[in-house]
Amino acid sequence: MGGARFLLGVKAALGLPPIGTVSDSPHEITAVVNTGDDVWMHGLRICPDLDTCMYTLGGGIDTARGWGHAGETWTVKEELAAYGAEPSWFGLGDKDIATHLIRTRMLRAGYPLSAVTEALCDRWQPGVRLLPMSDDRVETHVVVDDPEQPEQEKALHFQEWWVRYRAELPARSIVPIGADESAPGPGVLDAIAQADAVLLAPSNPVVSVGTVLSVPGVREALRKTAGGVVGISPIIGGKPLRGMADACLTAIGVETSAEAVGRHYGARQTTADGVLDGWLVQSGESADVPGVAVRAVPLLMSDVDATAAMAKAALELSGVDLA
Amino acid sequence: MGGARFLLGVKAALGLPPIGTVSDSPHEITAVVNTGDDVWMHGLRICPDLDTCMYTLGGGIDTARGWGHAGETWTVKEELAAYGAEPSWFGLGDKDIATHLIRTRMLRAGYPLSAVTEALCDRWQPGVRLLPMSDDRVETHVVVDDPEQPEQEKALHFQEWWVRYRAELPARSIVPIGADESAPGPGVLDAIAQADAVLLAPSNPVVSVGTVLSVPGVREALRKTAGGVVGISPIIGGKPLRGMADACLTAIGVETSAEAVGRHYGARQTTADGVLDGWLVQSGESADVPGVAVRAVPLLMSDVDATAAMAKAALELSGVDLA
Repeated sequence: MGGARFLLGVKAALGLPPIGTVSDSPHEITAVVNTGDDVWMHGLRICPDLDTCMYTLGGGIDTARGWGHAGETWTVKEELAAYGAEPSWFGLGDKDIATHLIRTRMLRAGYPLSAVTEALCDRWQPGVRLLPMSDDRVETHVVVDDPEQPEQEKALHFQEWWVRYRAELPARSIVPIGADESAPGPGVLDAIAQADAVLLAPSNPVVSVGTVLSVPGVREALRKTAGGVVGISPIIGGKPLRGMADACLTAIGVETSAEAVGRHYGARQTTADGVLDGWLVQSGESADVPGVAVRAVPLLMSDVDATAAMAKAALELSGVDLA
Repeated sequence: MGGARFLLGVKAALGLPPIGTVSDSPHEITAVVNTGDDVWMHGLRICPDLDTCMYTLGGGIDTARGWGHAGETWTVKEELAAYGAEPSWFGLGDKDIATHLIRTRMLRAGYPLSAVTEALCDRWQPGVRLLPMSDDRVETHVVVDDPEQPEQEKALHFQEWWVRYRAELPARSIVPIGADESAPGPGVLDAIAQADAVLLAPSNPVVSVGTVLSVPGVREALRKTAGGVVGISPIIGGKPLRGMADACLTAIGVETSAEAVGRHYGARQTTADGVLDGWLVQSGESADVPGVAVRAVPLLMSDVDATAAMAKAALELSGVDLA
């Protein structure tokens, strides 16, 4: 699930070109992508995780920044600011806006997000089937102390908390609004059921993987699939690999360590609601996750080769025969 | 009514700065603007005439091209084309898109177009009150022979006929769809009723002025106002001053001449539905429009001074004392 950079490595581990697609591969990769970060901005529907996967795997990403388009320009954003239009803190690039215009128009015409995503991928050819975790609206909100009204709580959209406040307002709780009533997107449960292996990317355990797991049916599908389920720790040396996952983990009462996150996901075989058979932690570290096979391998995704080696280790731990 | 360039001259004729606004002017100018050219493109609501007035009078227009923004860029358009998104023939500039995003968002939130226009003008300060002719959806359609199916007629949105086909498909008829059920925008009838003078800009008599006149109540207000009503011919030497007004006049069976257009508008005092007291034609030309005072003055709007002189002549013909 998720993790655009991780997917480049998974493709490479299976002998696929990291960017783009080939027509004659024996391997199929399906990515179930978090949509809890999705947001309406200036009347446009924005799906940051789906777009980052699509642009990255389709060769259009700004590799330095890690999100948005290579060669992006910001004319519309500057002009919106000249009007005083809020919010002004969100990075809405001109190229990106074309994607959002097409998505918004299709959604308003009644197409589900999964169909919209497929249509957008017609252009980008990511070489991975990108499935929104759900076609229903699920939005991660973060409850914080209101910075303007002491002793009052306030719920912010995840993007506002993450981008505007850089996760610096302590989170009281993190809630995937709408998740309870959501259904998995078309193909999600089947993809999990039929997978030879399921990998949990080293993404944010709370607001990325956790949000996907909050969609009713997904956790049960992971617990039932015949394929092995292996997670990769996003925590190295007690710190998030990137981003501000520690702020999210603190909010749900989980320590920022590879062991604690592994235990939070839990064992498929020996716990009532765990999802893991295997857990990868950084070389030189160890973790005691009861009921889960733990391996230590290099986890830094410094380039595609390193990421591919990590993905290969995860696939091997899952029991897939790559030979 | 209408005519961004004409409005620059009206402002100058009244001693106002052509661009921008002043707070202490004794003069008030209200422009009732055609919205029949408005169109949905890529999910955005676009109001070409309102925007051209707003940008022109607010100092943001591309003066060479006569529409859109100075320093405009086209990143979103190119990116939409890369997706294969239709239509691709419409010039949707990046700066323009910011305007359309704000407008679309406000319309979807329930604000009427008149309120949206006021909000957008907060930034541009055109120095003229810009009123949409109606808050209701009126869209000019052009009936043509279907280029793909001989002997079949087809209705095109005005923008498609004008921009895509450059008005080269002969128009069977031109219909302001929705006009019959539309109401004048807030302030339109009052502005006409209270005006010291009403000027009909040298705009397209069919799809600009004609569309405004098609809104129920506007024609009656023009016939009743105490102010003089003076039109300026858009036809000079039997040809449109600019644009392709001849193709529109032909469609409604009116000859492309200053005299025929003057007669088409008709005399307020001596006909049952005419709107004119006065009619300006180009120096050296003449026109016989029964019941209407015709004057010949220079009509080329080559610069603001020339346009101001023309507007001054129109105001004088209307009976306003400018001294």
